[in-house]
Parts: sequence; C-alpha cells; structure tokens
Amino acid sequence: MPLSSQLLEEGVQAFSKLPGIGRKTALRLALHLLQAEEEEVVDFAKALLDMKQKIQFCQKCHNISDQEICSICQSPARSKQVICVVESIKEVMAIENTQQFQGTYHVLGGLIAPIDGIGPDELEIASLIERIEKDEVEELIMALSPSIEGDTTVYYISKQLEGKTIKISTIARGVSFGGELEYADELTLGRSILGRLPYKQS
Amino acid sequence: MPLSSQLLEEGVQAFSKLPGIGRKTALRLALHLLQAEEEEVVDFAKALLDMKQKIQFCQKCHNISDQEICSICQSPARSKQVICVVESIKEVMAIENTQQFQGTYHVLGGLIAPIDGIGPDELEIASLIERIEKDEVEELIMALSPSIEGDTTVYYISKQLEGKTIKISTIARGVSFGGELEYADELTLGRSILGRLPYKQS
Repeated sequence: MPLSSQLLEEGVQAFSKLPGIGRKTALRLALHLLQAEEEEVVDFAKALLDMKQKIQFCQKCHNISDQEICSICQSPARSKQVICVVESIKEVMAIENTQQFQGTYHVLGGLIAPIDGIGPDELEIASLIERIEKDEVEELIMALSPSIEGDTTVYYISKQLEGKTIKISTIARGVSFGGELEYADELTLGRSILGRLPYKQS
Repeated sequence: MPLSSQLLEEGVQAFSKLPGIGRKTALRLALHLLQAEEEEVVDFAKALLDMKQKIQFCQKCHNISDQEICSICQSPARSKQVICVVESIKEVMAIENTQQFQGTYHVLGGLIAPIDGIGPDELEIASLIERIEKDEVEELIMALSPSIEGDTTVYYISKQLEGKTIKISTIARGVSFGGELEYADELTLGRSILGRLPYKQS
C-alpha cells in the first residue's frame, strides 16, 4: 500500500534498508520521528553523520577508535605479544565483553574469499605480519569463523609465518555451556568429541 | 559495557531512543551504517530530515500530505458529508488499508487527557466543528480507542454538537474474525454479546 506522502515514503524506505527492519517497523520508526521534536530528529541525523564521517580506525589494530591508536593498543595492561586475529570490530566487542582476554587484537576487515574477489591484499594481513616482526609477537589466536573463507585465511596467514617461531592457535569450539547435546549440530558435536579434554576434578 | 568509541556510542544511543529498538539492535544498526558507503549514510540522514522538515499536514483533515490539501480531501470520489474522526495519522493508514471507507477523515492529533494536560484546545476539535457546519456533514464516525481518554473525547465532541442534526456513530467492536471465543478478553466478549446482530441468511 503506497503512503499518501512521498516524503514519508522516502523516510520509510530509508529505514527499510537497515538490516532486520521490515516495512511495518520502518513505518513505525518514521512516524515516531515525525511526531518527535524537530531538534530530536536533527540530533539523530547528526549523530549518525558524525559517526560515519569522524570515526577513525586504530592505525595498529584497525579497531574503531576516536584517536589514532585505540585504547586497547595504548593500555600498558594489555600484552602486545599475544594478538587475537578477528574478521571485524564486532568480534572485538564480543571478546571484550567476556573480559577474558588480556592481549591485543588485529582486525582483518574481512576474510579471503576469491569468489567475491577478496584477496589477501584487500585485508590487513601485511600490517599483521609487520606487527608480528616489530613487536616480537609470541602467539597468534585465530578467532575467525569456521567457514571455507575463515579456514583459507588461517591457512594463508600460517603460510606467511612459516619458519618463524610463533605459536598459532585457534579458539576452542564445542557444545556451548548449557547447550543440550541432542540439539547440537553434528559438526560441533563431532569436533567436541575429537577435541575432548582430560577430566579435571575440581 | 561501554564502547571503545564515543562517536559510535552516540550513534548507538541515537538508535536506542527509537521505539522498540534495544541496545543490541541499535549497535547492529550503527555498525551497519559504519560499514556502509558514506553516500548511503548521507542519504539516510537527508531522507529523515526532509521528512521532518518538509512534510505538511492537510489544512482540512490534518492528515500528512505533500500539499496543502491531502489527496483524500481532494478526491471527488470521497464523501465530504461522512467524516471518520481518528486520533492520529496511524489510524488513517490502518483504515485506508481496509479500502472499506469512502468518506473523509479528521485527525484530532491526540485525545482529551486532563492528567497529561491535554485539553480540547490542544486538539483539532474546533476545526472539526467548523468543518461540520461548513460542509453540512451528515455523519461522524468515531474511531477512537476504547479508553477513558477516547470515551471522554467522544463525549466532549457529542456535547459540542448537541442540537445539531448529525448522526454520530462509533466503529463496531467485538470478537475479531478468526478469533477464538475462549481467548477473547472479557470486555470485548461482553460487548460483542450486548451488541449482537440479527442473523442474516446468506
């Protein structure tokens, strides 16, 4: 059903382009802004534009940052010798939320995907190799998705580091805590049996 | 968990203010815009600002419109003698979607709610009375919510029209089509029994 106002229609279409926002939700959001104070809408638009135009990426790890070097890379408490390699800033946030990792990150900005035309040169792999040499990195933790692209990327990086004394590890995968065995997918369950750990009495 | 970038934090907070958007969804939307082309973000912000700043309201029925008089009020096919009174433009859209109504609308812009400090003067009631006199309106269909505020508003408008020969009706309420009796709320079921209709053989 087309809307009676073309301007409203354009607002609804703008919202509809966002992920997970259907036409009904888009209409609800557009009508909310239409009924809000003009200042609120101006602030909303400004916050989004500022975010897009002013945000920087850390020159070292390529995580988002408001400075040239992000707070994680600047922190003296974070080990520069342990680097966790991730696909995007979303994974940095997810791992930071666990509060379990005291090393630093390296955001690749994607995964090697020849089908999509993404080769190693499109990603931050050269800068990773450079960091490893400069900071005498001891361990690289690969926290990439378990897909063909993820496996290819891990393989490519490990090939680049052949001959160097650096430990390369991948994050553990298995049935999640609280996950019922019968509902786990076969790949996860199979891998969690192959990668079983010795029982420790606590 | 605070984000590492203040600019991203502000973008997330801007989205969080929208109805039904929690912090996780707001973060997802903000990251989407962050990874989008700058032009896309500029277009998005512009569509919202244009919508807010340029949209007009019909001078007759106060529905949104891109002109001074909306397309419904301009249409010769729509009866000016039957007016459906609604709270907001959302109800106009909902009723238009049914394609069952051939009259015109009048958007009050709210309901009388003394607790919230909204009296008749804050609403488009005077302009409704004016329209009724000018266009010799025959019927007023009250499609307001069945709340204290809705009932108060219907009562107030009917009082203003005392002595005039105008039919005032309210939309039918009852158990919805496909609705199971056992799940209908008591008020709806009770009203649908009181408002029962004679059986017509089809």
